[in-house]
Amino acid sequence: MIGRYLIGLDFGTLSVRGVLIDVESGVAVDHHASSYHHGVMSGSLADGTPLPSGFALQDPRDYLIAAEEVLARLGKDRHILAIGVDFTASSPLPTTADGTPLSELMPGEPHAYVKLWKHSAAQRYADAINAAGGAFLDDFGGRLSGEWLLAKAAQVANEAPAVWAATERFIEAGDWMVMRLTGCEARNLGFAAYKAQYSYQEGYPAGIVPDLDARLARPLPAGSPAGELTGEWRQRTGIRGPATVAVAIIDSHAVLPAIGAVEDGTMVGALGTSAAYLFLAEHRLALPAGLEGVAYDGSLPGFWLYEAGQAAFGDLLAWFVRTFPRGPDLAASFAAYNAEAAAIAPGDNHLVGLDWWNGNRVPYADSRLSGLLMGFGLDTTAAGIYRALMEAICYGTRQVLELATAGGLGTRRVVMTSGLAETNPLLVAIMADILGREIELPVIAHATATGAAIHGAVAAGVVADFVEGAARFGARSRRRFHPDAERAARYQPLFSTYCELAGLEPVHAAMRRIGPLAGGTSDTP
Amino acid sequence: MIGRYLIGLDFGTLSVRGVLIDVESGVAVDHHASSYHHGVMSGSLADGTPLPSGFALQDPRDYLIAAEEVLARLGKDRHILAIGVDFTASSPLPTTADGTPLSELMPGEPHAYVKLWKHSAAQRYADAINAAGGAFLDDFGGRLSGEWLLAKAAQVANEAPAVWAATERFIEAGDWMVMRLTGCEARNLGFAAYKAQYSYQEGYPAGIVPDLDARLARPLPAGSPAGELTGEWRQRTGIRGPATVAVAIIDSHAVLPAIGAVEDGTMVGALGTSAAYLFLAEHRLALPAGLEGVAYDGSLPGFWLYEAGQAAFGDLLAWFVRTFPRGPDLAASFAAYNAEAAAIAPGDNHLVGLDWWNGNRVPYADSRLSGLLMGFGLDTTAAGIYRALMEAICYGTRQVLELATAGGLGTRRVVMTSGLAETNPLLVAIMADILGREIELPVIAHATATGAAIHGAVAAGVVADFVEGAARFGARSRRRFHPDAERAARYQPLFSTYCELAGLEPVHAAMRRIGPLAGGTSDTP
Repeated sequence: MIGRYLIGLDFGTLSVRGVLIDVESGVAVDHHASSYHHGVMSGSLADGTPLPSGFALQDPRDYLIAAEEVLARLGKDRHILAIGVDFTASSPLPTTADGTPLSELMPGEPHAYVKLWKHSAAQRYADAINAAGGAFLDDFGGRLSGEWLLAKAAQVANEAPAVWAATERFIEAGDWMVMRLTGCEARNLGFAAYKAQYSYQEGYPAGIVPDLDARLARPLPAGSPAGELTGEWRQRTGIRGPATVAVAIIDSHAVLPAIGAVEDGTMVGALGTSAAYLFLAEHRLALPAGLEGVAYDGSLPGFWLYEAGQAAFGDLLAWFVRTFPRGPDLAASFAAYNAEAAAIAPGDNHLVGLDWWNGNRVPYADSRLSGLLMGFGLDTTAAGIYRALMEAICYGTRQVLELATAGGLGTRRVVMTSGLAETNPLLVAIMADILGREIELPVIAHATATGAAIHGAVAAGVVADFVEGAARFGARSRRRFHPDAERAARYQPLFSTYCELAGLEPVHAAMRRIGPLAGGTSDTP
Repeated sequence: MIGRYLIGLDFGTLSVRGVLIDVESGVAVDHHASSYHHGVMSGSLADGTPLPSGFALQDPRDYLIAAEEVLARLGKDRHILAIGVDFTASSPLPTTADGTPLSELMPGEPHAYVKLWKHSAAQRYADAINAAGGAFLDDFGGRLSGEWLLAKAAQVANEAPAVWAATERFIEAGDWMVMRLTGCEARNLGFAAYKAQYSYQEGYPAGIVPDLDARLARPLPAGSPAGELTGEWRQRTGIRGPATVAVAIIDSHAVLPAIGAVEDGTMVGALGTSAAYLFLAEHRLALPAGLEGVAYDGSLPGFWLYEAGQAAFGDLLAWFVRTFPRGPDLAASFAAYNAEAAAIAPGDNHLVGLDWWNGNRVPYADSRLSGLLMGFGLDTTAAGIYRALMEAICYGTRQVLELATAGGLGTRRVVMTSGLAETNPLLVAIMADILGREIELPVIAHATATGAAIHGAVAAGVVADFVEGAARFGARSRRRFHPDAERAARYQPLFSTYCELAGLEPVHAAMRRIGPLAGGTSDTP
């Protein structure tokens, strides 16, 4: 029997990573990555045009070139049943009606390019929208981020009227990529709901940006087919077979089916430089206070998906180790600190910290907040501080979990994905003790791209649904970290201290005054 | 004309430092130091007898041996007009009526030895005395320290009744040293007032420790003659001349005449591993809230002398540099950090800290409090943290000054003595900016021992008073650090933030829970 395959494409900040999955065995048989030629443009455009502070742009042609390389490498002369695409968000671009990026027509105009997720120069438009208010903000804690589509559209309309006038479609790069691959504009509900505040009932919020609605489109649930790969792409890549392309998916949500997180009552964490958390619920609840957003059907059909996050996570440890190195390179320093920190029992470092080195996302959504460490004595050691930072980020995780629980979200499973878990198992062990919960770590390479491939499989009917997709193509094994009862008990009062500190408004006021200046980027991919 | 000399002896924690001053020129012509053979005994006695936690003892014979070496080296065959002695306090010992230390009679008994100033195992007796209360505490902020004489006497009486029964005199080691040198028991009012809560009006507080009063003695003002050097000492040291010995003086107060701090409205700071502050006033004021104690006539006749301090000062910087070294030794690390920290403008490190690494003395007198740093971002640098620690200890100094001012103590001059000023002028410059005041740094070697020598000169009538003594034998020159108006203005809101943090009771409660455990020593010499 001829081999049949799925392809998943994971478009990240600097490159696209692809995975080729054999449908029969369910196993990833090849993978390939390709970097974007221009990367992130934050100082100037390719032609030297300088960019204002807070700009972070990409050239959409880079996506096409990288995608072609990966698809050809993985799919040439292969029978491809389905392709799934995930993408950073919100990363919108203005195009003509047929999807031609305005950056190809106005190459010297910054506002004609993709505004990458971490483009932060639209914050004041978000502030104005938030000040005006509206029911469409209810599912997002009453405020939208300057990194979301509505703020970025408002920025183009206000700062580059000529670009806005030429904009026939204002579209997330993920949706645009699918449009390019299939010739069909089939947008995903997840992008629309989380980044443009679309709802089934109300559509896109009206009156925010003039004539924005006409430049958007009605979106489809996750796992919907967008169309088949065009003849031109088949010719350029050598792909054969039906090659059904699914609607795109937000990259941080794509991982769910790949790690078996397809059931009610699951907390999922992606622990990287920052941390992103998702809670899956079949039944609708008001957004728990402090959490960041919720939408239905957009990332996993039939589920309400609640979002939360920490603006600094692994970043915080890397900051410490870079600032106070202990070895010839980062890995050696980490190893030295971890070895010493592992020997410290909970509370024996006498320190508690607030992990707000990059501002706070949950519960305050205040990028001006800053980090704090308290409990220093003349016997405080460097490893004690390092361990306090590990503990602080895990207290942040627990605060997210507690807010979700307080808001009524039951959590039966805690599933984490993280490269950190491989290199820093001590961190996951500390987290299990601080959460007082078992933590599952699914073992799977290329999890996000695999999740995208499962979206393709669902869209193409290769599997009946995401549960079957997860079972056939997702993680086959998982490590489990169990909390230690005594250590968990010792962390209880320390976490209370964290919460007390985190809740003191006079401390916040002081931290804002001396903390990093506003306008920095948060780390929400 | 035959040379005539003064000798000052400064008995510190580990050694006695002596200085020889030529009366004619007013200049120090020789100096010598000698370490105590047994140093500080905190783990066990010399015979191996183990010591409980918090004990810090000394063997009084060590003082005699070290004093003999120094006096012989400086005074042999010289015409000595006067000798002054300063000593750590409170460092009391039990003796017989003739001054024989009980440690010579009961060498295996810990309670028979000198309880050094930092002996902290008597804290619970202080707690009990404080709980009972009394008007004698009014001049000491309502509480006495576990390091003071009354608590130490209570500990001996309660824990070693046989020792207490044999104790005919309970005497500060400084007074005992003078008794040994002269054969006369002439105690100093400073020791009695600051460490045993003696006042002219009320005498020693009654009813605290059974029969304590009979083991003490009526003290004399600073600068009083105690007697002349005995024949035995003259024989052992070769000293000639009248060799009038002044009553002893608390070491941290002895420096005043040596640095010209002999007038109303002077703030004096001794900046070392910890910091001690003195305010001189001719007129009586109630003890300003937050300051630690006040007494009259004991350290500089005719003056009310108010005390305050910081439990960690230079210690805090040394802690950082030891914890995060930047060079082959401490000096190289300090140089590297100072060079980088000097380039940071006030506020540009975005950090504010509470300098309570060794607990807090002013205004809370709470050794369980701990250090705090706040304002961290991912761009925080090691030198930024180091500078924040420098700033934090200077905010602590300013808080002392502000409390004194708020309590009505006018301050016309700010005089600091510090080895740190030589090695770390950046620290003094930052302090001038944070205080917004000119700082005088008298240039004088062996300042404390010189101050003791001036006490001798006053007692012997070599000079009419301390003003003349300061003029003839004290510092001849002084460096002046002037505040920079712009930097001082930038520090204003940062100091407000420090005060706000320092005043937040919920933060204290949290810091006490996680901070160093109670029972550690504070750093009050």
